[in-house]
Amino acid sequence: MSNPILLAPGPVQLHPEVQKILSQPMIHHRTPEFDQILARVLKNLKYLFQTKNHVFMHTSTGSGGMESALVNTLNPGDQVLAIVSGKFGERWAEMAEVFGAKVQRLNVEWGKSVDPQEVEKALKQNSEIRLVLCQACETSTATSHDIRTLGKIISKSNALFLVDGITATGAYDIPMDEWHIDVLIAGSQKAVMLPTGLSLIAFSEKAWKISETAKTPRYYFDLRKELKSNKNGETFVSSPVPLIRALDYVLTRIQEITLEKHFKQLRRRADFTREIAHEMNLKLFSSSPSDSVTALVLPAGLNGVQFREELEKKYAVTVMGGQDQLKGKIIRIGHMGYILDDHMVETMHRLALCLKDFGVSIDPEKIKVKSSDWLKANQV
Amino acid sequence: MSNPILLAPGPVQLHPEVQKILSQPMIHHRTPEFDQILARVLKNLKYLFQTKNHVFMHTSTGSGGMESALVNTLNPGDQVLAIVSGKFGERWAEMAEVFGAKVQRLNVEWGKSVDPQEVEKALKQNSEIRLVLCQACETSTATSHDIRTLGKIISKSNALFLVDGITATGAYDIPMDEWHIDVLIAGSQKAVMLPTGLSLIAFSEKAWKISETAKTPRYYFDLRKELKSNKNGETFVSSPVPLIRALDYVLTRIQEITLEKHFKQLRRRADFTREIAHEMNLKLFSSSPSDSVTALVLPAGLNGVQFREELEKKYAVTVMGGQDQLKGKIIRIGHMGYILDDHMVETMHRLALCLKDFGVSIDPEKIKVKSSDWLKANQV
Repeated sequence: MSNPILLAPGPVQLHPEVQKILSQPMIHHRTPEFDQILARVLKNLKYLFQTKNHVFMHTSTGSGGMESALVNTLNPGDQVLAIVSGKFGERWAEMAEVFGAKVQRLNVEWGKSVDPQEVEKALKQNSEIRLVLCQACETSTATSHDIRTLGKIISKSNALFLVDGITATGAYDIPMDEWHIDVLIAGSQKAVMLPTGLSLIAFSEKAWKISETAKTPRYYFDLRKELKSNKNGETFVSSPVPLIRALDYVLTRIQEITLEKHFKQLRRRADFTREIAHEMNLKLFSSSPSDSVTALVLPAGLNGVQFREELEKKYAVTVMGGQDQLKGKIIRIGHMGYILDDHMVETMHRLALCLKDFGVSIDPEKIKVKSSDWLKANQV
Repeated sequence: MSNPILLAPGPVQLHPEVQKILSQPMIHHRTPEFDQILARVLKNLKYLFQTKNHVFMHTSTGSGGMESALVNTLNPGDQVLAIVSGKFGERWAEMAEVFGAKVQRLNVEWGKSVDPQEVEKALKQNSEIRLVLCQACETSTATSHDIRTLGKIISKSNALFLVDGITATGAYDIPMDEWHIDVLIAGSQKAVMLPTGLSLIAFSEKAWKISETAKTPRYYFDLRKELKSNKNGETFVSSPVPLIRALDYVLTRIQEITLEKHFKQLRRRADFTREIAHEMNLKLFSSSPSDSVTALVLPAGLNGVQFREELEKKYAVTVMGGQDQLKGKIIRIGHMGYILDDHMVETMHRLALCLKDFGVSIDPEKIKVKSSDWLKANQV
């Protein structure tokens, strides 16, 4: 097998133009040239987030964005409702506890989406809840939550709705303002199609008002400082120039394509994966599958850890396995980033070859033809 | 004027090989290929820091590293002695206050280095001081402090010695262990010669013991979590793959050259700049000039802000101006990063041309010849 393929739920394959931009000679972040780029990026991020409010950038991974969301809204002792349906839900709940929140966990079976009525009930039972935390897509289970309905419910309460959209924002439709999201986070190495290193975050007016006086100590992630600098056309600390230059390209490109069509392209990849998985007798793990990543249950008795390693070593395909309780049981195939039809056909073909190696009865060539045919028949 | 030159005290010009590495196709950070790179980088960072202890990486700017140093050692209410000799000293003091420290500022005139006896006196007068904060090089004034002597003094007290080495570590000799430094920070876009996006930080055994129980809430910058992951061959959160791949190259290269020779190369650039500045009648701003960046006082009456802008616009040379109280009064020329002799000659030539444009009596061609001759006569 020849060319390596990376279809993980982040980091993702880079557009060739992005690779080129990343290798450009360095420029300083306090120059007229960079000022123009920064101004354009800050403007175009609003389109990506579907908000009229300011979108901020941190030099951090997505987890830094999750921390920023908390430290900019939380007062020590605040009551927080955390929807925990996987590894990242658990991380956010733990993080809130570290910063002094009293966290009530709403545990959801892995692979299922939260029942909005459960959230409504929890909010009614405890009017002291100040923040509700939820993943738009819980990456560890490839499950999307019903953010729209949750937004409606939470907007009627006193709580703020904080949404980790790291594997969702820019991958499928989450109109921040329209859906009453108070804080929305994105990560560069996911639907934003860049390397790891930038987290993006926006606040509703309601959330911003609270952030102005929230008492959790913060400095690196203090968005009050960042806003002041952004208003002067700068970032508060050094700007990661190559990433922001590449972000400029990605945002301009998405605007040209339009979000609507961009989302359709991702949906097509998700549909394709589900369809061909069905051909291969692989079941979907999630009952509410996300358009950004698909989790497939491996055949019973198959050693999933070995399988994923073999797929990588022998077939040069990197997809992710399961984490924690799902270790060895599922594989997760990402739909974000620079993905050509060839990548998808090849991935399914090699997946079938590898399944065959592991004793599964399957015809890889048939899978390859089916894959190719499906993509030709389903253009966006 | 043709090719642009960037001689700022970070971000710096990139080695062509680094540019190439940054544009490589993405790989996942949980792959055997990346595991090997990470292991090598974590090992080689010890050489850069001149420590036997573990060196950590954060996906953040240098300011994130400064925050990490604090939140991993500080208990709310702790007394902290902050040496403030410029903008970054002030930033660190302010940051410590945000996280609940009682900060005593030891203010030093900008451009001067701190008198170690003043630090000794302060520690004697207040045995409750838990941390001493100092820049190795205060970037805003291009001034280096006597870290070796300070380390000796502070190691005899109960306090930890926290050193911001962001424009120093890897630029000149600061042997962490030998000089009794408890926490040392570096930044990727400075002497590490990469784009902005990584901060590096190491702890002495004494500091690490304190960090294990320090009570400041922390998650993103929690090094206890990071150590646990590093011991498993991973980073705690996503790894910025291109930066770490490029760091691998830079560290390997510095090891090949040896730190000793690498430091001599930077010292040569600093010596050159001071020598030619003398030829141009430009005085050094600092009485304790750093080898990583040189600040030159602009002629009285010359509009420094306009001058720097003209140098950039007409002559394509980016150097930095002064900040805060030094705005318009100095220019700062960096010595870190990928700098060829041609870059240095050209910078001095264009600087002279620009000075002439602003009415200074100077012979740019003579400066060019002098520059070239000096570099030929002073090889490393």
